[in-house]
Amino acid sequence: MMAQQRMNEFLEKLSSGAPVPGGGGASAYTAAVGMALGSMVANLTTGKKKYAQYQEELESLLEDAAKLTQELAGFMDKDAEAFEPLSRAYGLPKGTPEEAAEREKVMEKALAAASEAPLALMEKILESMKMLDRLSIIGSSLAISDAGVGIQMAKAALNSASLNVFINTKLMKDRAKAEEMNFRADRMLTEGNTMADRVYETVLGRIC
Amino acid sequence: MMAQQRMNEFLEKLSSGAPVPGGGGASAYTAAVGMALGSMVANLTTGKKKYAQYQEELESLLEDAAKLTQELAGFMDKDAEAFEPLSRAYGLPKGTPEEAAEREKVMEKALAAASEAPLALMEKILESMKMLDRLSIIGSSLAISDAGVGIQMAKAALNSASLNVFINTKLMKDRAKAEEMNFRADRMLTEGNTMADRVYETVLGRIC
Repeated sequence: MMAQQRMNEFLEKLSSGAPVPGGGGASAYTAAVGMALGSMVANLTTGKKKYAQYQEELESLLEDAAKLTQELAGFMDKDAEAFEPLSRAYGLPKGTPEEAAEREKVMEKALAAASEAPLALMEKILESMKMLDRLSIIGSSLAISDAGVGIQMAKAALNSASLNVFINTKLMKDRAKAEEMNFRADRMLTEGNTMADRVYETVLGRIC
Repeated sequence: MMAQQRMNEFLEKLSSGAPVPGGGGASAYTAAVGMALGSMVANLTTGKKKYAQYQEELESLLEDAAKLTQELAGFMDKDAEAFEPLSRAYGLPKGTPEEAAEREKVMEKALAAASEAPLALMEKILESMKMLDRLSIIGSSLAISDAGVGIQMAKAALNSASLNVFINTKLMKDRAKAEEMNFRADRMLTEGNTMADRVYETVLGRIC
């Protein structure tokens, strides 16, 4: 598991020219950091008299957020797995027409898989945003800046993941399938960016 | 050093109710991830014939980006160091008027220090954005999505760090000093967000 490595090791590998980890792994980890900050807010709110009316909801949020943080971090591995076949496909020979045709077939499949992974990550990030949205309202005001940081991380991860969709769909020959994937990404971007900006305004309103 | 810990350990500590690491440490690491992606772009561009005209500049960018990535990651420790005195100040007794006055004096100093740390981080993030800006133009188109992810990370880190300024200056009694700090943060937010959005558009333009 990639999340087992040290934080400075990850920075070093990211900095290198190796294809993995790259923007995909960075997006996944940043999304996990955002959700972990949601857990922090919930942990600083749960059990407090002032927020007793939300106790049951907080407990359920704590459970869901812990699970989602793990899932998001797991996408670092999923991204790497989805990227490897693409990396191999780029290396296939294309000297003869048969080789070129075979390479194109393999590439097309690899590109679709490398686009599906960030799309699935985007769906999970939207889930984390919904939790951060709720926590920005019911979370303790002592921890509210952490909810604001959390939603910034989630937003950056969402936009970053979309780039990994677009850069792969761009090269697909099956334009109908590529456009369908782009459409899914665009729809999630619109939903997520609107939600993130609203949550951030809520947080700013509670701080300033 | 905080960056020595494992990535999943960091997520666990972040999720907990412990005051550190929190939004400050998360901002610092995310900024380091953004700059590391800048190094990745430079590493995938350097030595390539197509970009030979930028070779000298790329080498200098590689050196600067590696240094800055380390500095940004180091802000995880600086943030924790700046936050500890504040955490202790909150715990001081305030039963007698003397105790209350002493507590207020200690708090005021701790709040200023806890606001200076994210301000210094914001300055470093602006430096990283300038490098990502340049890399989004001279970087290999094969790695351009990583420049886009990098600038998203830097932008999220910048906005997140500003929240850690505002939440602390809000409680300062010396309003002139507080407003001066808020002004510095606002100015950097304007500069950084404008730059980040422009860089992201450049990247999207090169992808789509």
